[in-house]
Amino acid sequence: MPSSRSTRQGEDLEVVARNGLLDRRAFFKGGAAFAAAMTGYALSDTAAAQQLADDPWSRGAGNPIAAYGVPAPFEKNVVRTLSNPRGEPRTQHGRTPHHLLNGTLTPNGLHFVISHSGNPDIDPDKHRLVIHGLVRRPLVFTLDALMRYPMVSRMAFVECGGNSAPLFSKEPIDGTVQALHGLVSCAEWTGVMLSTLLEEAGIDPKAKWLIAEGADSLALSRSVPMAKALDDAMIALYQNGERLMPGNGYPMRLLLPGWEGNMNVKWVRRIKLVEAPAMSYYEARTYAPILPSGKAYQFYFLQEVKSFVTHPSPGLKLNGPGFYEISGIAYSASGRISKVMVSADGGKSWAQAALQEPVLPKAFARFRVPWRWDGGPAVLQSRAWDEAGNIQPTRAQIIAARGETKTVPSVTGFPSQHYNGPTSWSIERAGEVKHVYA
Amino acid sequence: MPSSRSTRQGEDLEVVARNGLLDRRAFFKGGAAFAAAMTGYALSDTAAAQQLADDPWSRGAGNPIAAYGVPAPFEKNVVRTLSNPRGEPRTQHGRTPHHLLNGTLTPNGLHFVISHSGNPDIDPDKHRLVIHGLVRRPLVFTLDALMRYPMVSRMAFVECGGNSAPLFSKEPIDGTVQALHGLVSCAEWTGVMLSTLLEEAGIDPKAKWLIAEGADSLALSRSVPMAKALDDAMIALYQNGERLMPGNGYPMRLLLPGWEGNMNVKWVRRIKLVEAPAMSYYEARTYAPILPSGKAYQFYFLQEVKSFVTHPSPGLKLNGPGFYEISGIAYSASGRISKVMVSADGGKSWAQAALQEPVLPKAFARFRVPWRWDGGPAVLQSRAWDEAGNIQPTRAQIIAARGETKTVPSVTGFPSQHYNGPTSWSIERAGEVKHVYA
Repeated sequence: MPSSRSTRQGEDLEVVARNGLLDRRAFFKGGAAFAAAMTGYALSDTAAAQQLADDPWSRGAGNPIAAYGVPAPFEKNVVRTLSNPRGEPRTQHGRTPHHLLNGTLTPNGLHFVISHSGNPDIDPDKHRLVIHGLVRRPLVFTLDALMRYPMVSRMAFVECGGNSAPLFSKEPIDGTVQALHGLVSCAEWTGVMLSTLLEEAGIDPKAKWLIAEGADSLALSRSVPMAKALDDAMIALYQNGERLMPGNGYPMRLLLPGWEGNMNVKWVRRIKLVEAPAMSYYEARTYAPILPSGKAYQFYFLQEVKSFVTHPSPGLKLNGPGFYEISGIAYSASGRISKVMVSADGGKSWAQAALQEPVLPKAFARFRVPWRWDGGPAVLQSRAWDEAGNIQPTRAQIIAARGETKTVPSVTGFPSQHYNGPTSWSIERAGEVKHVYA
Repeated sequence: MPSSRSTRQGEDLEVVARNGLLDRRAFFKGGAAFAAAMTGYALSDTAAAQQLADDPWSRGAGNPIAAYGVPAPFEKNVVRTLSNPRGEPRTQHGRTPHHLLNGTLTPNGLHFVISHSGNPDIDPDKHRLVIHGLVRRPLVFTLDALMRYPMVSRMAFVECGGNSAPLFSKEPIDGTVQALHGLVSCAEWTGVMLSTLLEEAGIDPKAKWLIAEGADSLALSRSVPMAKALDDAMIALYQNGERLMPGNGYPMRLLLPGWEGNMNVKWVRRIKLVEAPAMSYYEARTYAPILPSGKAYQFYFLQEVKSFVTHPSPGLKLNGPGFYEISGIAYSASGRISKVMVSADGGKSWAQAALQEPVLPKAFARFRVPWRWDGGPAVLQSRAWDEAGNIQPTRAQIIAARGETKTVPSVTGFPSQHYNGPTSWSIERAGEVKHVYA
């Protein structure tokens, strides 16, 4: 066991905001800047040697390599939480455990999934993608045919319009970052630009929208403006290097970087060019909540600039005062994240966070701030800016414009969509972390 | 079924090298540039409607979401090939199927693994990392302690020194890109910079090397110069967002971006600072082959600039003449890839490939070239340059310097290490792809 605790507590790190937020530039000074603040345990030489006595797993042969690897058994709790684990005939959600992950992408096993009628078991050799409607010549593509086309790879987040809906609730909902914000993930997607396929089909100038339809039993369909289709829309075939996961649209999905998750139609089988939107179920009902003004909030498309702290967050208890890294995720449909500010006193004072390079457009940016917790009460928040000049709004601004609910909003309740305000984590004296409004 | 084939064959795409290599700038012109060359099938309106008749998977509820997702059953052949699937007491290899993947990273389930005594089943709460030797004060770190430190995320490839060893063989070995080059992968790694921990321990100026030792039953150990340890070495805790895979070092590994895989010690439990290298088994024997000059080729460290074509490649049959994308992977321990040239006539003429942005240092760069195959014989090759000015050598240059073997080299045979010459794929008339020397 450790024989003595490192006692020097980072006196030479500059505090830039109240409650112990430190200058992010310490990250660039190398280890020396942190050496005095850190949490390793000093040992005598003898104690060091004792630490290296063989553990049971060092005394015999290990396990064979699997053809397809999965996480260690000790990680069995690092899973998606399921709203409908038996797949009963209603919508299912699988939420990403952001508090247990780190980095800028979501591994495929843990990418969030929403399925309204389960994940279809599609034979990729029999699946077809049809492009028709207002085109010069309708086209059909097998997967093999698409594999011959020029491909593009890009990191992109996908977020459900209903992600973070619990924050519309009048009273703060007790929950982890997975429960509150688990319906967003980020992956590298590889596929064929939709513009390539549309131009091959020949676009009738009358076409202003397309209707994308999935091969799930619901034939989920959404209307997409042609401008987005010709900008950065992709027929995605690969997710983080391998074929799409079954719940993420295998064998092909429409990817609309930064746009509402539901529009990124999974298992896509039809792209029909039309003059006007279809007013399908999801665009006419679920994603058309009524605003306090009485108007419907419809066709809003963009998942606007947003951020939240993942470490620390509820479920990750702080183990005594001293140095911690505050870290989280920021993203925007309008391009790159340009700045993230972090507060440890509920928004009264702020420190700028370091952004992990490279910062990519419409993808997760990982932000980090060094922090010295004094063991007292603190409230952590983050606020993000994007390169288009958008600023994450306050919760009060969102509630004023869009309304509030008495309790957890249902996915079709009003308001329940596109919350992008801040999230506040209260650090309690014992090191517990709790969701609060501040 | 398709009623008529698209017949326009890309007359307006510029051929820039023999055997149909097209100008990469076509990628930037949008779909219109390719429209005439492509492989979609034109339909009548009636035929389009028939394509959308419901398939079986569209007629009933799908499968429930899994807590941890895995690929679709139809992808069951997209797996690592295993040299020792029952885990007999000798080295095991699991090779990445690059011909079945696309993008710039390797999903965790398919990252290559070499284990010399199996994958230990380490309890992360009981594992310790000890830093001792020539330091001011020895330190011990639990995983919980490391979790409080400042973290960094970076994409980095890891490659076994013995990857591509079959290309030392006098006659070309019949094999896929997985068999020939499957011992390299690329992931986003997140962890603590080793420099942070070393500076906390306090480095004795006499320390010139460190010995890193794993907690596997072999206690695999390698010597690393201090300059690398203080440059970009990391104690990695996360791989593509989630904790390390068991075969990739769970719960922690040494990551030395760009350096020989075996030195990136997995399951790391000890970092000992010393004056001279340990001359451990792997550095004194396996990775010290005898050169034709009689000297040992030892402590070479860098995985030098390299590239190979993954699409098309053996096992991916071309389905008739027409447009294809040639695509592959390039990487270098010396920084970013600056250029990749591709040949379709065995190296007589070359076209520059497009590089997928962002191109990151010491990480996979995905290159792509548009190609119109006329159905005749062709030999595909790639050659990469890095930003430090290094050029992938020819096979003849490597053989002259390092020797040749009569057949497949064993992993400890001479020569068997660090082949980074070109790979040639011969396209046969029937569309089969074969490994050749050219």
